Parts: sequence; C-alpha cells; structure tokens
Amino acid sequence: MSYFDINKVNYEGPKSNNAFSFKYYNPEEKLGNHSMSELLRFSVAYWHTFTADLSDPFGVGVAERDWDSLDEMEKAKARVEAIFEFMEKTRIDYFCFHDVDISPEGASLKESNENLDIIVELIKEKMDQTGKKLLWNTTNNFTHERFVHGAATSSNAEVFAYAAAKVKKSLEIAKKLGSENFVFWGGREGYESLLNTNMKLELDNLATFFKMAKSYADEIGYTGQFLIEPKPKEPTTHQYDTDVATAHAFLQKYDLDKDFKFNIEANHATLAGHTFQHELRYARDNNMLGSVDANQGHPLLGWDTDESTDVYDTTLAMYEILKNGGLAPGGLNFDAKPRRTSFKQEDLILTHIAGMDTFALGLRVAYKMIEDNFFENIMDEKYKSFNEGIGKKIVEGETSLKELEDYAFNINTINNTSDHLEVIKSQINQYILNINNKD
Amino acid sequence: MSYFDINKVNYEGPKSNNAFSFKYYNPEEKLGNHSMSELLRFSVAYWHTFTADLSDPFGVGVAERDWDSLDEMEKAKARVEAIFEFMEKTRIDYFCFHDVDISPEGASLKESNENLDIIVELIKEKMDQTGKKLLWNTTNNFTHERFVHGAATSSNAEVFAYAAAKVKKSLEIAKKLGSENFVFWGGREGYESLLNTNMKLELDNLATFFKMAKSYADEIGYTGQFLIEPKPKEPTTHQYDTDVATAHAFLQKYDLDKDFKFNIEANHATLAGHTFQHELRYARDNNMLGSVDANQGHPLLGWDTDESTDVYDTTLAMYEILKNGGLAPGGLNFDAKPRRTSFKQEDLILTHIAGMDTFALGLRVAYKMIEDNFFENIMDEKYKSFNEGIGKKIVEGETSLKELEDYAFNINTINNTSDHLEVIKSQINQYILNINNKD
Amino acid sequence: MSYFDINKVNYEGPKSNNAFSFKYYNPEEKLGNHSMSELLRFSVAYWHTFTADLSDPFGVGVAERDWDSLDEMEKAKARVEAIFEFMEKTRIDYFCFHDVDISPEGASLKESNENLDIIVELIKEKMDQTGKKLLWNTTNNFTHERFVHGAATSSNAEVFAYAAAKVKKSLEIAKKLGSENFVFWGGREGYESLLNTNMKLELDNLATFFKMAKSYADEIGYTGQFLIEPKPKEPTTHQYDTDVATAHAFLQKYDLDKDFKFNIEANHATLAGHTFQHELRYARDNNMLGSVDANQGHPLLGWDTDESTDVYDTTLAMYEILKNGGLAPGGLNFDAKPRRTSFKQEDLILTHIAGMDTFALGLRVAYKMIEDNFFENIMDEKYKSFNEGIGKKIVEGETSLKELEDYAFNINTINNTSDHLEVIKSQINQYILNINNKD
Amino acid sequence: MSYFDINKVNYEGPKSNNAFSFKYYNPEEKLGNHSMSELLRFSVAYWHTFTADLSDPFGVGVAERDWDSLDEMEKAKARVEAIFEFMEKTRIDYFCFHDVDISPEGASLKESNENLDIIVELIKEKMDQTGKKLLWNTTNNFTHERFVHGAATSSNAEVFAYAAAKVKKSLEIAKKLGSENFVFWGGREGYESLLNTNMKLELDNLATFFKMAKSYADEIGYTGQFLIEPKPKEPTTHQYDTDVATAHAFLQKYDLDKDFKFNIEANHATLAGHTFQHELRYARDNNMLGSVDANQGHPLLGWDTDESTDVYDTTLAMYEILKNGGLAPGGLNFDAKPRRTSFKQEDLILTHIAGMDTFALGLRVAYKMIEDNFFENIMDEKYKSFNEGIGKKIVEGETSLKELEDYAFNINTINNTSDHLEVIKSQINQYILNINNKD
Repeated sequence: MSYFDINKVNYEGPKSNNAFSFKYYNPEEKLGNHSMSELLRFSVAYWHTFTADLSDPFGVGVAERDWDSLDEMEKAKARVEAIFEFMEKTRIDYFCFHDVDISPEGASLKESNENLDIIVELIKEKMDQTGKKLLWNTTNNFTHERFVHGAATSSNAEVFAYAAAKVKKSLEIAKKLGSENFVFWGGREGYESLLNTNMKLELDNLATFFKMAKSYADEIGYTGQFLIEPKPKEPTTHQYDTDVATAHAFLQKYDLDKDFKFNIEANHATLAGHTFQHELRYARDNNMLGSVDANQGHPLLGWDTDESTDVYDTTLAMYEILKNGGLAPGGLNFDAKPRRTSFKQEDLILTHIAGMDTFALGLRVAYKMIEDNFFENIMDEKYKSFNEGIGKKIVEGETSLKELEDYAFNINTINNTSDHLEVIKSQINQYILNINNKD
Repeated sequence: MSYFDINKVNYEGPKSNNAFSFKYYNPEEKLGNHSMSELLRFSVAYWHTFTADLSDPFGVGVAERDWDSLDEMEKAKARVEAIFEFMEKTRIDYFCFHDVDISPEGASLKESNENLDIIVELIKEKMDQTGKKLLWNTTNNFTHERFVHGAATSSNAEVFAYAAAKVKKSLEIAKKLGSENFVFWGGREGYESLLNTNMKLELDNLATFFKMAKSYADEIGYTGQFLIEPKPKEPTTHQYDTDVATAHAFLQKYDLDKDFKFNIEANHATLAGHTFQHELRYARDNNMLGSVDANQGHPLLGWDTDESTDVYDTTLAMYEILKNGGLAPGGLNFDAKPRRTSFKQEDLILTHIAGMDTFALGLRVAYKMIEDNFFENIMDEKYKSFNEGIGKKIVEGETSLKELEDYAFNINTINNTSDHLEVIKSQINQYILNINNKD
Repeated sequence: MSYFDINKVNYEGPKSNNAFSFKYYNPEEKLGNHSMSELLRFSVAYWHTFTADLSDPFGVGVAERDWDSLDEMEKAKARVEAIFEFMEKTRIDYFCFHDVDISPEGASLKESNENLDIIVELIKEKMDQTGKKLLWNTTNNFTHERFVHGAATSSNAEVFAYAAAKVKKSLEIAKKLGSENFVFWGGREGYESLLNTNMKLELDNLATFFKMAKSYADEIGYTGQFLIEPKPKEPTTHQYDTDVATAHAFLQKYDLDKDFKFNIEANHATLAGHTFQHELRYARDNNMLGSVDANQGHPLLGWDTDESTDVYDTTLAMYEILKNGGLAPGGLNFDAKPRRTSFKQEDLILTHIAGMDTFALGLRVAYKMIEDNFFENIMDEKYKSFNEGIGKKIVEGETSLKELEDYAFNINTINNTSDHLEVIKSQINQYILNINNKD
Repeated sequence: MSYFDINKVNYEGPKSNNAFSFKYYNPEEKLGNHSMSELLRFSVAYWHTFTADLSDPFGVGVAERDWDSLDEMEKAKARVEAIFEFMEKTRIDYFCFHDVDISPEGASLKESNENLDIIVELIKEKMDQTGKKLLWNTTNNFTHERFVHGAATSSNAEVFAYAAAKVKKSLEIAKKLGSENFVFWGGREGYESLLNTNMKLELDNLATFFKMAKSYADEIGYTGQFLIEPKPKEPTTHQYDTDVATAHAFLQKYDLDKDFKFNIEANHATLAGHTFQHELRYARDNNMLGSVDANQGHPLLGWDTDESTDVYDTTLAMYEILKNGGLAPGGLNFDAKPRRTSFKQEDLILTHIAGMDTFALGLRVAYKMIEDNFFENIMDEKYKSFNEGIGKKIVEGETSLKELEDYAFNINTINNTSDHLEVIKSQINQYILNINNKD
C-alpha cells in the first residue's frame, strides 16, 4: 500500500513550477568536499508528521490521514510504513521520535514496553532494508496525566520513578536502533507558580535524573550524544531549561557540562527573547552545539507555530552550523508541522519540501559567504586593535587596571569606527539574490 | 539652604491622609529581633533622584530642580547637599551612585578624576556628619559616546583601557567611602547584531575585565561585595548579563562565581520574561542574592518604567529576602523615578514614600506569613513523598534507573494531589487585607 | 445525587480560615440601594466549569469529574444537575453556555438540534424550579473541523450557511430560556495569513451575518441584548474583532453600532496590548459596555490563563462598572478555569470563591472610592482649565485656529501642574488595606 | 560647500560591489507605464537624517555631522543645503519635516514663527531651483516640555491653544511650499494612566482640534491630503491613535472619516501587534491608504528601531501599494535612521541606499506577482463558492437565517479545501530569488 501517491521528489532547480520538486535542495550536489545531504542531515519528526491531528486549544483535529480509522496497534504499524515511504520519497535520511509517538501506551508500564518492543522490531527491519537512520529518540514525560506536576521535577516521588523507568526503556531502544543522539525536552520540568514550588529540590532531582540516565547509558554501552532541548515556557509557565545559557549554568553547577550538548529549536529561541542565531552561536562558542530542531515562530503569536520558510533565518543558521564543522552526529530535524488549514496528507510532503528548500537555500548562501570570508573579513577589521599593543595584552590577560589607567591617561582622542551595519544587511540581500546566478 | 520644604517624614499609620507621612513604614518598629529599617535597608539612587531630567526619546527634560541653573561643579555640590537633606527627611540610610552622577566629566580622564576627588571629599564629610552610608557605587561605562561599541566588550582596545581606568578610580572611591558593595551593570556590554560581533572574544575580554577589577580591589584592601546587575536588553539589543541564570553560567565558566553575587532589578526580570520573585529565588538558592534594585515595569511597555507600588510584588520579594536572612551588606535601592508627569521637586519625596510604604507593607505581610509557616507548610505537604522510601533514595542520589523501573512496575495507580493554587492566592489576599487588623 | 459534598457557601468575613467560605462576598449586604449580588451579577461559565478537561497543547485532560464515564447524553444531563447544584451552593444566580456545551452534536444538524431540545427542556425546568437565570448563550462556531477556515468568514459558503443555521437555533433557545443577552465570539473569524485572505469579502460577509441574526431575533421577538466579544488572536492569528475600538469601527462602518454592545474579557484586553480598564472605559464612554468575562491573563504567557485574584484589577473594573450604572442586563461571567494542577471537582467551588471574593473586594473598594469622589476630585482639579475662558470655548467647539493663535501669542508662561500619579497609586493601596476597618 | 563627498548614486545592478550604487533601484526604468521613481515616490525624513544625534535613553548623541558646531540658525541653514544635496545625490524626489526640524524655537511663539519664515523662504528657493517636492509637513507637538500632558488632549487649555497655533502656522507653510500632504502624529495624545485621565473629554477635544485644522485649511485654500499616523504607545503609555482600525473608529464617530486618510508606519504596526501588511490592507480596503513611513521594528525590542532591509516585508507592502493604484499624493518616506553604531555622515547615504534598494526589490517582485495574477488566482479559487448559488445570495445580502437553515439541513458532507499556505510561501521565495533572472 502507498500512502503518498507521488513520485520520489527530484531537484528541478529554482525555475520549476512543480510543487513536488526541490528548487534548491540537490542532495548529491557537492559544496566543497561534502554533498548537500551530508551537510544538512535532514530528519523528519514522527510526532508532527505522523501523529499530530492539527487540533488547537479551540478546535478539534482536522488532519485527514489514511490510518485514522485503524485500531491503535494497527495505526502504529501503518505509521511505520508511512514514515519510511515518506523518507524514501522526500529523500530524508533521518527520523526522530518520542516513545509514545511510535506505539500506544498500555494499561501498565509492562504492557507499554511490550507494545514498544513490537514496533521497535518493525522499525529496525525497515531501517535495515532502507538504510534510513535514527537521528534521535526521546521519552515523552509530559503528555500523560500522571505528569501533571512534572516528571523528574514532580512533587510526587512515584512519578519520578515512573519517568525514570520510561527513560530506561528509551535508552534501550536507542541502543538497539543505533540512535545517534538522545534528547531530553522537559516540557513539564518547571513550575506554574513559585508560591508552591521548591525550586531547589526540583532542580537537584533533575540533576540526579540526568546522572542516572548517563550512568545507565554507560552501563549498557549506549554511546549516542546526550542533548538537552531548552524552552522557556509552554506548557509550563516557567521551564527550567529556559534557554541555552540557563541550561549551561545548570549543567556546570551539577558537573554535567561534559556529558550534554544542546538540541536547539528556533521557535524556543524566539519565545526566550533571543534570535535563533544567538542560541546557535552561544552553543557553538562553548562547543555544545549538538543538533537543531528546525522551525520558526510567528513574531506576533505567543505559542509555537513551527514552520520554516524565512531564508534570512536559515542562512544565518547554516552559517553557524558550517562554522561549527557541521552538526554530525546531530542533524536538522523538522520539528515543524503544516498549518491547521493544510490538513491533507500531501501537505506533509509539501511542507517538508518548503522547509528543505529554505534550508538548502540558506546553506548555499552561507557556503558562498564563507568561501568569500564575508563575515570573517568584517570581524578581522573590526577587532584589529586586539592584535597588538595594549589590545594584545588584554586578550592575553597580561595587564592590570593600573597599567590600563596609565595607558588611558595618555590617550588623546578615541576614534571609534562606524559599523555600517546597514551595508552588511544589504550585502546579505545581494548574496541571497545572486545565489541563482552562477556566472 | 533647604531643598525640600517639608518636615522629616513620620509614621502616621494606615489611616493617615497626610501625603507626607508613612502609612506602613515605621523605621524603629521591631519585627522579631530586627527593626524595619534594618530589614529593609532602603537606599536612594543618585541618578534617578538627583540627576534625571525626565526626558524620554520623544521629549526634552521636564524636571524642575533648584540646581538647574548652576554651573556643573556647583550643581554637583548642590546635589550633595540635596541628597543628604533628602535622606534625612525620608529617613533613608543608604545611597548609591555612578561616578558620573556625582561630578562632571572633565576634558581629560585626569580632570574627571580631579572633579571626582573634590566631590568625594564633600560626600565623605557629609557621611561622617550624618551617619548615612554608601550602599554601593558603580562606574558609568555606557553614556559617553566613546562607549558606542561597548566598554569591556568594545571592539576598540583603547576603550577597554579607558573603561578599566574608570573602574580603578571607582574602586578607590569605594574604598575611601566604605562602600558596602560595588556594582557592574553592563548596559553596552552586548551586541546590536551578531552579524558583526565576535561574541567569544568579547566575553573572554569581559571576564578578564572582572578579574582585573577583583585583583585591584584585593590589592588596595577594598572588601565590599562585588555584584553584577543582569538585564537582557536596552540599550543594547542583546545584553550579555541577560538574567541571573545567564550571568551565573558566565561566572561559572570563567571561575568567577565565588567572587560575585547579583544585584537584582525587578524591571529587568520582567524584560527577561521572568518574575521578580524568580530572579530572587534563583539567586537565593545559589547563595548569590546580593542586593536589590527596587522598581517595577509596566507589563504593556517595552522599556523601563521604574516605579514601585504593587504590594503583591513587594510581598513576594520581601519573602525571598527574609528567607535569605536579609540582604546585608546589600539593600533595597530605589532604582525608580517619578513619572514624567510628576516633575516637581516634592515628587521626589512623594514617590519615595510610595515605594518605601509598599515595601514596608510587603515586609509586614511576608513576615506574618513566615511566622505562620504559610509557604513552608504548603511545601512540606506537597513534597512529603521525598521524605521516605523511594523518594528519600532519589533525593540522596542512592538509586538507579534499574531500581526505579522495578519500583515503577509495581505501581498500581499514581495518585497526584490537587494544588489548589487559587486558594493559596486567595489566602495571600487575606494576609494583605488583614495586616492592618492587629486584634 | 450530589456532586459537591459541601454546604452552601456562607459569608464568614475576612478573618475566616474556612476555604469554603466567602471572606468579602456577602450577597445580601447592601452598598447603597443595591445588594452585592445585584451589583455583581455573577455567572458561571458552562464550558470552563462543566466541560473543560484541563488539557493543554502538550497534555491530555486531567480533570476528575463524576460524569466522566457516562455516555454523551447522560453526561449532558448530569452536567445540568451539577451546574444547578453548583449555583445553589456558590450562590451564583446566572449561567452562560455555548450550544455545544450543553448537549452533544449529532450525526446531522437535525440530530444536534434534537439533542439540544431535550437538554434545553431540562434546563428550563431547573430554571423554573430554582429561579436561576441565563445571563447569555452563544453559538460555538469554532471547535468543529468544518470551521477550519472560519464560520461567518469562511471561504466556503456552505460553512457560512451551517454557522447561520446554528445561530438561528441558538436564538430560539435564547428566546425560550429568556436569555438576557446573546453573545458572538468569533474565534475563527479572522485570518492565519493575508497571503490567501480576501479580508474585505470576509468582513462584508461577517456584517451580513450579524444583520441576519438581528433580523431573525426581531422576527421571533427575542429582545435580549446583542454582544460582541473582542479578542485579537488565538486561535486565529489575526481575529477581526481585535479589541473594542476595532469592533467599534466595524460596527459603525456597517451601521450596526446601535444594535450591538460589548462583552469584554480581561485576558483578551491583555492580549491586545491594553489594560482591562481601558477596554471597559472605551466601551463605557461610548455607551457600549454590555457584559464582562471575568478573568485575567498571565503577563509572561502568550495564551489565556483565565484566573482572577488580583484586587487592583477588580477594583478598577468595578469602578468602571459602577460608573456605568452597573452592567444589567449584562453580568460578571467567570470565563475562568482552575489551573491544570487544580483538577479535583471541589476546585471548581474553590476557584469560584476566589474569583467572587476578589471581585467583591474590588466592589467594596470601588464603592468607597466613589462615595469619597476620589477619582472625580482628581479629574475636576486636573481639567479645571476647561471650565471657563478659552478652555470652555474649546470644549464647546466655539473657537478656531485663528482665535487660538491670538490667544497663544499672549501667553507668557505655561504652567503645567504635576500629576503626582504615585500618590494616587499609594492612596489606592490605602483604600484596599483599609476596607476591612469599619471604624 | 559639499556635505557628501560622493558622486550621484547610480544604478549598477545586483552584482555591483560598490556600496554607493543602487543594485535594484533604477529610477527611470519602467514597470508597465510607470517609472520606478513614480511608483516608489521616495522621501527623506528631515528629523532622522538631519537633526537626529543617535542618542538613546542610556547614551548621549554620537552622530558626527558637519554642522554640529554652528549656532542654531546657521545650523538650520546648513541643514537646508545638506538635505537638497542629499536628495540630489540619492535621487530622492521628496522630503518631509516637522516645524521644529527646520528651524529653532524662539523665546516666544512669534519668534519661533519668524525663524520658520526665514528657513521656509530658503527651502522654497531650493525647491524652485531643484524641482524637489515636499511630500508632507507636520507639527511637532510632543517634544517641548509644555506638552508634558499632551497637546490637543492636554489637561491644560493653554497648551491646547498653543498647539493649535503651531498647527495653524504649519498649515500656512504647507500652503506656501505646496506640501502634498499634511500629517498628524499624536505622540503625546493619549494617557500614562487612566487613574487620572478623562478619556472622553480628551477625545472630544482631539476631534475639535482636527475639525478646526480642516476648517482653517479650507479657509486658506490648502488642498493637501490630511493624514493621521497611528501608533499604540511610546512615548505615551496608551496613544489614542492606536492603530488604523482604532483611528478609523474615532474618525467615524466624529464624522471625520471623509477628511482624513492614514500615514502608516511599519514599526508602529508591529508595536500594535499587527503586521505592516495588515495595516496597509485595512486602510486600502477602506480607501484610506494615504502614505507610508517606511521602516521596520526589531521583533525582540520594545522600541522603534527604524531600519528597512527585509525583502519579505517590502514585497508585501509594495503589493498592497500597487493594488491601491499607488500612493500618490502620498509616498514612501524613510522614517528610518542609521543604527547608533553607524554614526558617520556617509552612513546617511548608505542607509538610504539600503532602504531604497530593498523597497525597489520589493516593487520588482510585487509587480511580477501582479503580472502573473499570483495572489488573484489564489483568491479566485479559494472563494469561488461565493460566485454562485447560496454563496452569491450571501454576498448580495439576499438570504436569511431561515433559508440558510433549510440549506444547511440538506448538506451531506462539508468539504473544505486545504490551503497549502506553505506552498504559497515557498513560491514567494522563488519569486524573490528569480527576480534577477530575466531569461
């Protein structure tokens, strides 16, 4: 049975009128030594693409899916078929899931695990057949009502235990499927109000939870990269992993910063009051850029919108990723969903083409800029006073307030230079507009 | 000469109709072993109260001050007279200033320092005469045009040197005046755009700057507490000391977390997407709550509004402060200004009475709540599952995913308890409303 | 059968420790000529209180309700029993509902209407028995998947027809139950993106829809007040009835402003960037204040939070309402829900007590202020220059630019007065704190 | 004397590396029957470009201008020379000013007017010599301290008179210089707090003010278009002309909607929670789109940022403008300033090139889309159900709830269509990227 009645999507270039073609993403095309597929490492998200029903807080689901009428286990199996067909047709090499995305929870933890075993086995077969790979898996410790007060930060010790058991199972799945990363997103790890929250106890418990997870991974020989995905709020009023810097403070405090990197989501950056590029840069500067959840927020809305078509954002994101030496073993996971009004099954293909092309375009632009040393030349000129004299001493930590005061007493006039930031922005427009012109 | 033609402000109780009286602040009244003045440690801010002209981005200054027509040095001296009279009449024991608040910059750094010496001497005399104390001083490294690209994070090494020289002088003033704290607010330490910013170099330089300052303080025997004041933006698009957690990450990374605590401003918390209480709690939990800039933001405006009359906020702030064992050597500095439409000199008194009374009321309510173990009882009940059995093992770090899975397999039903958060909020209203009723 | 195992809630005064008592709401107590119940006209919202399951975009429902396991029609009947018991015990006189709140949709419109007929009959009996009244009813034209592109502004004419048919039925129910008002909230009347929206056509259609509804009400002799409930966004990215002023522009343009007033929700005001008081004042000044949805938003969250415990807000809201001569035939409907962590059935009672007490407290404070002419005295003093001379001519429209220029040429100095806004705010704190002290 | 040591800026096409060239703006190039200069009608803003010093709330001015050291009247004359040279070199045909931008206020209103007369005469000479034109002028009734409580909405009748006199003079200048439009921006027409504001009186006065202005224009035979520029806040906490819809409600209420259109600023739209395109569309649909203040806000900052380099925004803005039949007699005024770090005089040129090129690029893309009926085809398909049958009756207002109910009873299944919004966004990216490729 086929779920997507289209041919494999081909690269047809920027002039194509075929909605089911790539205009910028040409998987095998080389930029330098690497193909675009190697540089982008696209991944499809099980939840938005195969389980989401496009409901919102004021409306029921509207998604029309071929598996809607099946019973739970049959639905789970159909989705496995569908995602592998989807990856084949969209030429996406990776996928990601939460435990509850792939198989239904049972009446007990044991039954849930048995369901997982059946579907994981099926996924493994498909992976072996197709060569598709698991970018990361994670544990959903936020949807079920038992997590009403959190999971690792619940006020109920039994819930902590239950969440831990679920992570244990997920780590075993990660090991079995060769998951390249393992992600923690703490949607309910935070508080609704400080009035009844012991933040210190909860954060101590969260650190303990992470340590046990790492310890168990070591025990079973699972060597995938551990990632934390920051978000400031929603569903929790205040989420502890607020942004990259906040989570960095936490990891340092509990001596976990060598064991974790970050999975950075663009929309979460916006919600935290940062740009996507800022979060990527912070992580890169600290050697903690692990993977990316590719989407974007609507600047006028307070909740996740999860789409991706702004080429300014993708250009700067790809710049950071290229300067990071790529994302591997991480990748670009489309944590993005169609708009509620795009409810047909074919929209799943169309929205991924839109997102892939936008990132591919960003990659092409960023690659060209790096070839030209565009930003590097700007930086070299701007910071040149730190290459010699007093500037060099500052950078090397070999001066003091006294010496600097002596120096300052002898400055006649300070000449700052104008940044011409507007010119830089215009030049980025030129880079984007000229990327089609090869001559 | 007198600048404030009123009598010393007296406590007249909550029924008083006298605008120039305290309704809740009774300085000598004891709450437990401490007087209200000891618990609140109020401070007046030189800048908002004695140098601000109430201009805004669309309008010139409107403040009417007796010293408006004087020349710069005479104005500086008049302000010293005025602030000490102000502290006397409002019964405020502390004050705070930036270097440029107290004396005019000269044509050269040397001349600026000479101006400072004259005014510092005058301030010292006044302090000796009156017993008033300096809560903290700081260096203004953001107003002058030389700081257009930042100070410690400027792209211009000469500017770094100049800023360092200014901090050196400020530390010497701190030492001379016995300043109980020394504050760094990095208004221009950040970036307007990442497109032309080397964030890593700038943050390395910022750490070097802090280390040199600490080193010089040690050298001259200045032992005041060092404080960083976080703010996420404005004037800089992204300010590096974004919030307490971000600055905590920075301090840990550069091994500075033992040398610095935080000066927390309410409005900056709001701008960062946090509550005031959150920032206080985070700092308290990490033993880094140093001092407080008391004000509040307008939830519908994007810039500082700097007033303080919300008793919910002051109650929860004073709760955190009391649980911290007070703020000393820090204090409650009114980094707050009259509204632009309150431009008379007497408004300076009236707005401080408003702010002091609101914090005094918050203190009274918080103190009563602590006497009753109000929040403590809520927490004890909520987290009781961590006092024994598997909960105790979790807290003590003596369990593992395996043991927790075994435990989880045997859970029949998880019973979470309802938080009744709305009842807690109603009870806070009751505490506030009943604080006047002593019977 | 009883759903709420408590006694009828009594007024016990501000010192009571009984969570199931009123501290400020004393229904029969007179303020002037009216009882508190007459002035407040509290109403319970069917949807938040009897059908909401406290799910959120990241979690399933957690509410525990006695009727959870019943089939749909039995559930509908149980809820009728429950809401009348609830109103009896909480002493709330009014209720509100959407059509889909009270009975399940059937397989066809006819079947849905038959279900409605059964439940409406049952409600009518209960109303007759208890004297409880319907403040307003409305039509849910947003939850069902057919409304994915809107209802009256759908791009699909069949959907417009279906929505119109539902409103027709709702108007008949309003007539039958003597509903005092009829509300339109256009959750999906707006757009996700202008890229594919014909805003002009959609707004024309919306006006047509309203006109037909008014016309049908006239035809069947339904005389309740028609109300529009503004909201700027969520679920729709841009909602056409953005705020009171925007909807006022719409009503004027289509000559509907004599037929509609507004149902104002506090949280919607916040989402639109206004204060609750602003929206009330705008409506009052234009004689269009019809009814109120009582709740409040969280200033740091982008979605509805729907609680109500801030006495500043309720004081200023009640001030506007009292100055409006009350709300009748409108009322104060608790469009508010328990927090997700308050999931027990008794929380429904507790959260309403919290909300009722906060509004009752606001009423007491506002009433006292009006007795004292508190705000009126401020206004009289502030605007006194418009009572005579050139000011009077301006107000009466009897001057011109020429005359004003002549006048201005002869002004020597303009003396503005200081507003002392901080003092006003302090005095409001005093009013609140002193409301318990009757002496 | 020359202020800008560059040649007249030429169009060099998208591959040019010359910062002082246009890449997309080719003034004489025809798109259809009109040249780009006719379609864009660019204007330079006196205030941002010739009087702003790039100060911010935390820092003094940093702009370096040749006229900085001159006395006030000489400075005013130098600026006239400079702006005409600027327009010549940048090929901008229009300019805009506030009264206070062009000449200094004197010690009295009479003296201010005399200063204005001198400079206006000089400007007139320059206009006659060069053919440059005045797009609009306006009155600054917000900067001076007399406007602390507003101008037309001041609580002080003398201030109202003074403001009226200033508008009278501005209208005379408009007449003399042939200003094509006359703008009102009410920066201080609003309130800081409702606690001491009589909103009704203030709005009545504002309407009176506008009526007198229109009346005086008629009297002196000034026939330029009258425009209101909406903004929601800053400097005023709540500004009465919040957004286009709010101002539309006001104009209708006071029967002024035939006399005024709107001057729409992009950043003000953002501050009001709308997109730029929304405000343009609302005005266009109501035949009230008068002119545009071209800039953009930073989505993460709460204040005006006033730059313009986002091609998505300019494309959609130019689409609305072209569909409006152009803006004439309005235009595209660069109410935009260099970043604070771009403080050199040449940055004035560079930032205008950036803005002009971005709008020119947007024009090219929008023009191509209209040629292709890109959006029109989408709309035709989407709303086709309103072209016949019941849809046609709805649009023509010839149906009723009863008929629609009959119709709805007979609907079997409602088939909505998927919007594929993501495809539309991808196609916009294609249009932008392909605009350089003529083949």
